[in-house]
Amino acid sequence: MNDGSALVLHSGGLDSTTCLYLAKSDFKNVEAMSVNYGQRHGREIEAAKAICDQLKVKHSVVHLTIPSSMLTDPSIAVPDISYEEIEGISPTYVPFRNGLMLATMASYAQAGGFDAIYFGAHSEDAANWAYPDCTPEFIGAMANAIYIGTYHKVRLITPLQWLNKAEIVLLGEDIGVPFAMTWSCYKGEEVHCGTCPTCRSRNQAFQIAGVTDPTIYREIEAA
Amino acid sequence: MNDGSALVLHSGGLDSTTCLYLAKSDFKNVEAMSVNYGQRHGREIEAAKAICDQLKVKHSVVHLTIPSSMLTDPSIAVPDISYEEIEGISPTYVPFRNGLMLATMASYAQAGGFDAIYFGAHSEDAANWAYPDCTPEFIGAMANAIYIGTYHKVRLITPLQWLNKAEIVLLGEDIGVPFAMTWSCYKGEEVHCGTCPTCRSRNQAFQIAGVTDPTIYREIEAA
Repeated sequence: MNDGSALVLHSGGLDSTTCLYLAKSDFKNVEAMSVNYGQRHGREIEAAKAICDQLKVKHSVVHLTIPSSMLTDPSIAVPDISYEEIEGISPTYVPFRNGLMLATMASYAQAGGFDAIYFGAHSEDAANWAYPDCTPEFIGAMANAIYIGTYHKVRLITPLQWLNKAEIVLLGEDIGVPFAMTWSCYKGEEVHCGTCPTCRSRNQAFQIAGVTDPTIYREIEAA
Repeated sequence: MNDGSALVLHSGGLDSTTCLYLAKSDFKNVEAMSVNYGQRHGREIEAAKAICDQLKVKHSVVHLTIPSSMLTDPSIAVPDISYEEIEGISPTYVPFRNGLMLATMASYAQAGGFDAIYFGAHSEDAANWAYPDCTPEFIGAMANAIYIGTYHKVRLITPLQWLNKAEIVLLGEDIGVPFAMTWSCYKGEEVHCGTCPTCRSRNQAFQIAGVTDPTIYREIEAA
């Protein structure tokens, strides 16, 4: 257990919640931060709050200006396909979103005297350059920029970087992550839609891991 | 002349205005962006607008949330000393400010189809780690993060990186930068104060360069 403090970038999803639990076991003092960039799936921030309340972790929300994209513009439909069916740049990619979120975290981490930032990028997000701002190359560059730019105070920690989503489910199951409280769906309706890329990837991860998926989906294809 | 387009991070100061002029000679299409992070010296944004209007360059302002610092909190006094007299972390350092501004630029540059971002960090800002987010190490890391995170579309260009402030004055004089229109002072009063670190550094640069300083200062020490 490290006596220092860590700030977790917490979307309320499965990956970042697993990160939060890992941070809690690694650092004495842990806080979580969600970023509101106008995403239509604002429900994820409610999920983040509820999870942090249960863990007794301080949670804050920071607002960011980001150019319009599918995830923020209600006039652009969320496609009902899986990530595997997407060719080229993912329509769910928000320009340089993770760079902007991590820079914001770095600013707050330095101002607040934190030693580390936890960020839950994983190998499936990075695969085939779907999300270039989840790749090991990007993470390495940002880790350098953050460490240098904060007078060598703040380190970027990415414990899920080499895991796929099913491996994260297995890890989360092992350390008691409350999967049912996490939110992934891009549509932000009452329940997970089950058909958007992130719902499909979530459900598939549980199936591959052989762990019961507690998520309520509006509709879901049988495996 | 490159047929592509460049987005210039333009504070309205001497360095970034010189960058803007360099970008105009390098790229066919140039736009400028100022960042409003609540800085007390909001006059620099007015200066940026006026300079861009004169150059017929499109100028926009983006708002950012940054933790409180001397440059944004009116209850913290701006010290009347030179950068040489400051020991350790500069009181004018805003946590990871340039990381956050560059990440924002990268997001807009990618969304807008720009090929490059111009950023006017120079060697005096980087000296002695006064501003770690102006060092070549930081710039290299951010250049990588931006290039990777934008699907290899956006490059970070920092033409002043190895110049000191006096050399920038000489360069600016040579390419017709309207120095009198630029704004440096941290205090944001009617005229440049002449006593804050950035006013001292500005005036000293003109003196070393042997170029007449057209700036009106409230008070200034004779060289």
